[in-house]
Amino acid sequence: MEVIKAVKEMQRWSEAARLRGERIAFVPTMGYLHEGHLSLMREGRRRADRLVVSIFVNPTQFGPREDFNTYPRDFERDCVLMERVPVDVVFAPEPAEMYPQGFQTWVETTELTRGLCGAFRPGHFRGVTTVVAKLFNIVKPHLAFFGEKDYQQLRTVERMVSDLNFDVEIVAMPTVREPDGLAMSSRNAYLSSAERQAALALSRALNAAQRRFREGSFLAEELLAEARQVLAQEPTVRVEYLEVADARTLEPISKLDRPAVIAIAAWVGRTRLIDNVVLADVGAQ
Amino acid sequence: MEVIKAVKEMQRWSEAARLRGERIAFVPTMGYLHEGHLSLMREGRRRADRLVVSIFVNPTQFGPREDFNTYPRDFERDCVLMERVPVDVVFAPEPAEMYPQGFQTWVETTELTRGLCGAFRPGHFRGVTTVVAKLFNIVKPHLAFFGEKDYQQLRTVERMVSDLNFDVEIVAMPTVREPDGLAMSSRNAYLSSAERQAALALSRALNAAQRRFREGSFLAEELLAEARQVLAQEPTVRVEYLEVADARTLEPISKLDRPAVIAIAAWVGRTRLIDNVVLADVGAQ
Repeated sequence: MEVIKAVKEMQRWSEAARLRGERIAFVPTMGYLHEGHLSLMREGRRRADRLVVSIFVNPTQFGPREDFNTYPRDFERDCVLMERVPVDVVFAPEPAEMYPQGFQTWVETTELTRGLCGAFRPGHFRGVTTVVAKLFNIVKPHLAFFGEKDYQQLRTVERMVSDLNFDVEIVAMPTVREPDGLAMSSRNAYLSSAERQAALALSRALNAAQRRFREGSFLAEELLAEARQVLAQEPTVRVEYLEVADARTLEPISKLDRPAVIAIAAWVGRTRLIDNVVLADVGAQ
Repeated sequence: MEVIKAVKEMQRWSEAARLRGERIAFVPTMGYLHEGHLSLMREGRRRADRLVVSIFVNPTQFGPREDFNTYPRDFERDCVLMERVPVDVVFAPEPAEMYPQGFQTWVETTELTRGLCGAFRPGHFRGVTTVVAKLFNIVKPHLAFFGEKDYQQLRTVERMVSDLNFDVEIVAMPTVREPDGLAMSSRNAYLSSAERQAALALSRALNAAQRRFREGSFLAEELLAEARQVLAQEPTVRVEYLEVADARTLEPISKLDRPAVIAIAAWVGRTRLIDNVVLADVGAQ
């Protein structure tokens, strides 16, 4: 497994692979890898000739009061996990390689990023779309893999790719969960064991809403009430938002007459967690 | 010469050419071609295996009160000129192919676009960087050619390419002028013969400033005074801006202690014209 830190070197590697007719799969990550990341890598491995993973804690997607400095990092452990997949190339640039002095160009997808996390994390998605556009130009993949856990990110990246005509196929992969239901996230490392227990309220609340949907309730307000009831049992969980949205446009909806997503962001102590479940009539999908 | 109108078909053509190891030169234009465009194409022809030209009057770089609808168009005449170069592929999409329903992603280079034309044409450069990013992803060129006549556009595109890591070499080519000095522009077609005569004041004014610079004046105010004197002789020319700026950052400067550009935008009747001259001590470049 090769570790590349320079943009130009990564581009040369990818260009050479493409000239040989090889197909490149790409999994962008911020490292501190878990099963969610690894499931993306395995699918990438399966579907292409070459597999590139980036490990880059992207400063521009963190707000000034967010956790950029404390975000968990363990490059050596990440490398052990990636060797096992196996990954061909790890692209791991320093921030100054990605954002040199004078950097001033931003990629922004506007409507999809207004609500949900976008409303609480100004600039976050601008940072995400900018770094993903950069990484696509650096890694030159044929396929790129994103997890459904970051649902708004997934939809936004898909839109960015389509709007800017990136010739990259975006592959969405299901959220990977701990056996007790907690969605895997690098930020779970922040949780104390009591918080870890309380954090289960998120997936339990979404499950309760989904059950209600499957039982035939198509009113967002009913599903939300169901979820809120579960969340109320964990007073240490502070909900930032809990919404039913159109699965495609992410606009809030009150009737589930099309594919929808129920999404939550909540604080457990000083840790912000997100989760979601797609609510789609099998026939309507 | 092949004419391609669909994004996917252009991408397939370029991908196939790249797989054969061919180098692609690209000249993005809004059509109504003149010698300026043709000089870019000839250089592209010389420096690559394949030459692609786009003809697309990009709606997003025109303000609501600007000349998108009246911008001169003559695709058949353009094709005759391109055949002679010769051009391999003309990419000529419809606006709806480039900006389908729901389009919402923008590429913006911030600092370089604040002054000069950016101050008078809000949104213009956002439209330019967005369409150039799209065209690069569609045409997948190794080299792309831009004229120095649109100096702020050239610097902005260079910065966008560097910031977003497009693996495209930007080649700048000198402004092509009519024998009497008028910078070539598709918009010159708007000018009546009296306006055509008055429009010479722009290049004359810049020449006067450049002469003064070569004679040893390094104060922006002195060069501007010289230019203003020439412009005052054509009262029908309404100056929008006339500035001496750092050639790299485009920030206004008062002393010419580094490479600079003197740039003008002016209205001649209802036609807005721009021109510029780079003022660089040969030793300092």
